[in-house]
Amino acid sequence: MSIESLRPALAPKSVAVIGASENPNKIGGRPVAYLARFGFGGKVYPINPRREEVQGFRTFPDLASLPEVPETTIVALPGDGAVSAVEECARRGVKVAVVMSSGFGETASEEGRAKERLMVEVARAHGMRLFGPNAQGLANFGTGAILSFSTMFIEEEPADGPVAMCSQSGAMSVVPYGLLRRRGIGVRHAHATGNDADVTVAELACAVAADPEVKLLLLYLESIPDPHHLAEAARIARERELPIVALKSGRTAAGQRAAQSHTGALATEDRVVDAFFAHHGIWRVNDVAGLVSAAELYLKGWRPEGRRLAVVSNSGATCVMAADAATSADLSLAPLSAATREALDRVLPSFATTTNPVDITAALLSNSRLFGEILPILARDAAVDALMVGLPVAGAGYDVDAFAEDAATFARKTGKPVVIAAPQPHVGARFKAVGLAVFELEAEAIAALGQFISHSELIERVRKASPPVAAAPTAEPTRGRVLNEAESLALIAARAIAVVPHRLCRSEAEARAAFSTLGPSVAVKGCSADVVHKSELGLVRLGLTDEGAVAAAWCCMEGILEARKARFDGVIVAAMAKGRHELMIGAHRDPVFGPVVVVGEGGKYVEALPDLKALLPPFGAEEVRRALAGLRMAPLFEGLRGEPPMDVPALAEAAVAVGRMMAEASPRILSLDLNPVLLGSAGEGYAVVDAVALVAEEEVTPRAAP
Amino acid sequence: MSIESLRPALAPKSVAVIGASENPNKIGGRPVAYLARFGFGGKVYPINPRREEVQGFRTFPDLASLPEVPETTIVALPGDGAVSAVEECARRGVKVAVVMSSGFGETASEEGRAKERLMVEVARAHGMRLFGPNAQGLANFGTGAILSFSTMFIEEEPADGPVAMCSQSGAMSVVPYGLLRRRGIGVRHAHATGNDADVTVAELACAVAADPEVKLLLLYLESIPDPHHLAEAARIARERELPIVALKSGRTAAGQRAAQSHTGALATEDRVVDAFFAHHGIWRVNDVAGLVSAAELYLKGWRPEGRRLAVVSNSGATCVMAADAATSADLSLAPLSAATREALDRVLPSFATTTNPVDITAALLSNSRLFGEILPILARDAAVDALMVGLPVAGAGYDVDAFAEDAATFARKTGKPVVIAAPQPHVGARFKAVGLAVFELEAEAIAALGQFISHSELIERVRKASPPVAAAPTAEPTRGRVLNEAESLALIAARAIAVVPHRLCRSEAEARAAFSTLGPSVAVKGCSADVVHKSELGLVRLGLTDEGAVAAAWCCMEGILEARKARFDGVIVAAMAKGRHELMIGAHRDPVFGPVVVVGEGGKYVEALPDLKALLPPFGAEEVRRALAGLRMAPLFEGLRGEPPMDVPALAEAAVAVGRMMAEASPRILSLDLNPVLLGSAGEGYAVVDAVALVAEEEVTPRAAP
Repeated sequence: MSIESLRPALAPKSVAVIGASENPNKIGGRPVAYLARFGFGGKVYPINPRREEVQGFRTFPDLASLPEVPETTIVALPGDGAVSAVEECARRGVKVAVVMSSGFGETASEEGRAKERLMVEVARAHGMRLFGPNAQGLANFGTGAILSFSTMFIEEEPADGPVAMCSQSGAMSVVPYGLLRRRGIGVRHAHATGNDADVTVAELACAVAADPEVKLLLLYLESIPDPHHLAEAARIARERELPIVALKSGRTAAGQRAAQSHTGALATEDRVVDAFFAHHGIWRVNDVAGLVSAAELYLKGWRPEGRRLAVVSNSGATCVMAADAATSADLSLAPLSAATREALDRVLPSFATTTNPVDITAALLSNSRLFGEILPILARDAAVDALMVGLPVAGAGYDVDAFAEDAATFARKTGKPVVIAAPQPHVGARFKAVGLAVFELEAEAIAALGQFISHSELIERVRKASPPVAAAPTAEPTRGRVLNEAESLALIAARAIAVVPHRLCRSEAEARAAFSTLGPSVAVKGCSADVVHKSELGLVRLGLTDEGAVAAAWCCMEGILEARKARFDGVIVAAMAKGRHELMIGAHRDPVFGPVVVVGEGGKYVEALPDLKALLPPFGAEEVRRALAGLRMAPLFEGLRGEPPMDVPALAEAAVAVGRMMAEASPRILSLDLNPVLLGSAGEGYAVVDAVALVAEEEVTPRAAP
Repeated sequence: MSIESLRPALAPKSVAVIGASENPNKIGGRPVAYLARFGFGGKVYPINPRREEVQGFRTFPDLASLPEVPETTIVALPGDGAVSAVEECARRGVKVAVVMSSGFGETASEEGRAKERLMVEVARAHGMRLFGPNAQGLANFGTGAILSFSTMFIEEEPADGPVAMCSQSGAMSVVPYGLLRRRGIGVRHAHATGNDADVTVAELACAVAADPEVKLLLLYLESIPDPHHLAEAARIARERELPIVALKSGRTAAGQRAAQSHTGALATEDRVVDAFFAHHGIWRVNDVAGLVSAAELYLKGWRPEGRRLAVVSNSGATCVMAADAATSADLSLAPLSAATREALDRVLPSFATTTNPVDITAALLSNSRLFGEILPILARDAAVDALMVGLPVAGAGYDVDAFAEDAATFARKTGKPVVIAAPQPHVGARFKAVGLAVFELEAEAIAALGQFISHSELIERVRKASPPVAAAPTAEPTRGRVLNEAESLALIAARAIAVVPHRLCRSEAEARAAFSTLGPSVAVKGCSADVVHKSELGLVRLGLTDEGAVAAAWCCMEGILEARKARFDGVIVAAMAKGRHELMIGAHRDPVFGPVVVVGEGGKYVEALPDLKALLPPFGAEEVRRALAGLRMAPLFEGLRGEPPMDVPALAEAAVAVGRMMAEASPRILSLDLNPVLLGSAGEGYAVVDAVALVAEEEVTPRAAP
């Protein structure tokens, strides 16, 4: 339904340009020129009451004068003219309006924002979809529907091809386009949606992902107000085996501040954004170079089977740097079989290296057949999952065409990914000419290969997990009630999460009794829903070993809380928990992404020295284990210096249970903080030692997880 | 002296090519062609007994037939021919031989290695300097002395200029050359020294650093067998304000293995390599792109005064990504003054942003004077230390020449660093034409700027510290004696390093007496020079609070050590040390770099979860504090969640004392491990709780620190 409503944006039968200009360098002139130039097959109606003709097209004074109601309009009038035009389009039954005019929601002006809301309301009232305002516009080189004023399509000649780019930003809809075009890669879609007041970039991405000609979908996002649309785009893409690579900027505090002044977007912790992308199989990159660096590899149709790389070069330095780069990309060097090494030995000069990386040395200058003899040997070795050929210097004296043909033969015969590093443009061009993916330097080639392989593995994992499609978000409660520690522990204990043995004691006598049950060594903690950081106030006493001390702690804590006018809910007497290391499991509701579970190292310094991973429910134990394996502290789980491994499976189950709790309707948990969770050795489990829950005051409609 | 001996390599009066070839694509043909082509002013003597003439030069049958003894020879004969040629050169008084022949020390063959040693011996016996063998050779475009067979000088037309490249690898001597030449930057030196059997790349770097025309020195290294030469090159460079940027490959385990099969180099922990470069003001990069990415910035003569960046772009997305990139490069965004913001407000359209980054929006398309009006306003703001202009899209409709002139005016008038990000080649070209440094993307521009500013600050710090010049290394003792814990603690306590109050007890009675002095709570540890990891064997008991328990521990530990047939040196009874966090100070002698001190987080998991920084003695407390500030755990030092700061100054003094100990002649400390060092709050100091020292068995000649 949503996708169908966007069809007239990507493949309109007719387009009217409201505010059409004779000058092709003006906003209202560019789309007219582009529609004429790039093979648009539908009708074009320039609207301009002051001219008979615009750029060779007959003009019309207004929408009413057109021979038909156009499916799609471009609105290129400034200010109130844009608002009136949108109203008229909606009333007359236009299906899609692309509003290029600026000065609305992207400004600090309340008046501009109100006008933007008005445009959206009138569009929705009449079933018209609206792009923008402040949209550079849409460009589909498959249909010739270039409803865009970007300068870039004059600068870099378009060619229809397998890549699509969807962006909020105008510049970022075309910078990757330019980088790809200069590499000779065809780009079908280059869309900039602007303020996303009605149609968002994520909703458009759903329609683009459904285009069967698209083989790689790139996204630039400054905010993700509608993760459910992006999740849907990812689902459509997964079904089509279409990879999505996304650049979400504002990954630092400074970047988020800049994005907020620009888009007014809500801030989300960056690790939640990471988790969202991973959850849906979208590969996140940090910058523009990363967005396009591996593009060619996605277009080869490879299905990588592993992470073991073979490297061949005529330079030892390239071999060393390739080994460094492989480690950085989390690839390993394929261990060559004895048969492979013997075969290499027969071919290579005695001073060359027959281990991987294979350094064939400058001997290549005198024997151009070396590549052709070595590559088939490597092709036969099952340990080789991918190949990098590095040719840092070639030219006069080298038979580069033969090398290129040899590498292409390897690629064709094995179907394994092959990347070439050749810094000299004319050398690289000859490898490109036989269809190979060429990079300037080994580090770039291997980083791109690593991304491609890791992303392929991620997509495969997500396909198996097939995360449920999210509903659109509903309102979330914002007011909540803090449960005290005893209530919080009871809440999780009821969901089979292991908590430390404890009693909430309302009197000194109960505390003494609890000691005799839970001793010989106990912790005593003041219990109050009004106090978050207990230890700073002297409300935590550990390792008490006699009843008198417990009784004294009871009195003392009652006094501390009374003095602070904080509620006194009693004291908790707890067994001194055993465990090897302090972990934490947290959960909260992100205003944009909904429920988020965070796992990682626990203790006092979680905020200052975070070693955490976020997960979006629903998730299984396997996903928790993978997240835990990505922590800095991960080596500890295996057991170091003779220690046994820790009980990671039990911890993972606890995190899964927390994920499930976040989906429960009652109580509606707004946040949950289990810290520390003392983790024991394998088989010993864990114990939650402290917990704070914040639950919604009113019951609210359950919301599906994204 | 050393530099003078290399003058004939860089500026020879005459060159003989032994094994000269008519074919300019052969190893013996290329140098002849290059000497003819690139303006060498000295004499060229091709030696080839089978030809009258080679490439238009008259040939000579042998060295003896030449009209003079050539200053420099190129040896391009294979195998034993090369060895004989070197012998004859040395005997006849040649000053420098560049041996291109391969099959010597770079192979696994003992015969080849022996021949290489022979060449070096005969050269040294006659005072001849030898490059190679296996050297691609030297190229100095300042003198036209191209004693190299690299293909690259055919591929990319040379131009003398301010950059020098010294490399062991042939490929890596010219790959950066090619990247720089394609950017229009002149390269004077492109040297590849091969096996470094006599002259090393670091020694050559000393001579190149002394060339007054060189403004940027780039190095590629796979091993650093002679850090004293590299330190000397760095000293020469600092005196000339010449920055050095180095790529040392083999930074990962896989890379080190590849380098070892290639160069046979000794492995050094990568953090020690980092520390060495930092100590001498050399900027270390991770890959080839990093070697050249900031090259242009070093050539502008800027003296950066701070790290506060202003960003101006016509794209909000560029602004956001620039803010992210600034954070990654450890730059901050300049906070603009109220006056600046008011002035911007008067110039910019209402929907543009007047905070930094300054987003001038697509309004630039209709008003090309915006840059020209904004940049002088930013130029007047003292908070701006550097400027990035991002122009992701321009072209038809934009007055790019005006933008370029405006940016150049800013650069000229302020003297502040300016970088341009312009992905369209023809747009970038117009900024280059007015002398500006242009990058494709904002992330690259800002990363390069960050490197340039950080490196400038590093050089300034090192100039102030002026590390002493190292002597050549002398033999280090390899056999040592482990001191037991008590001896180790005594060793450091004698150097005013604070150790935990303790007694070494030889009898149960002594242990009981120690408890009464050191209690009420003590640690008891078995003391034996034969045991390194005590806790695994049950030789550590903490928090004993009665005399009987101490006596029992004494007996038990004696039994444990006897059972293991380990020496029993008594037990240590120590006060339970207080302190906020476990740190460590370690020291060892790297076989290449000499004494190294390591500081960082202590405890049991130092190896598995390292959070450490290396320092090369001598160093001061300020350098230790800077190293500590770079640790992951650094936020803890400030005091978190209401805690007071920790006593970092005291810890720094302890590290300085350890650095001094490593320079002492007696005892000669081979390694020292202080872990844990319990650090207290400011003013409370620290206490070393455990220590192990390894000292040389024989006294050896003291070695100067590098």
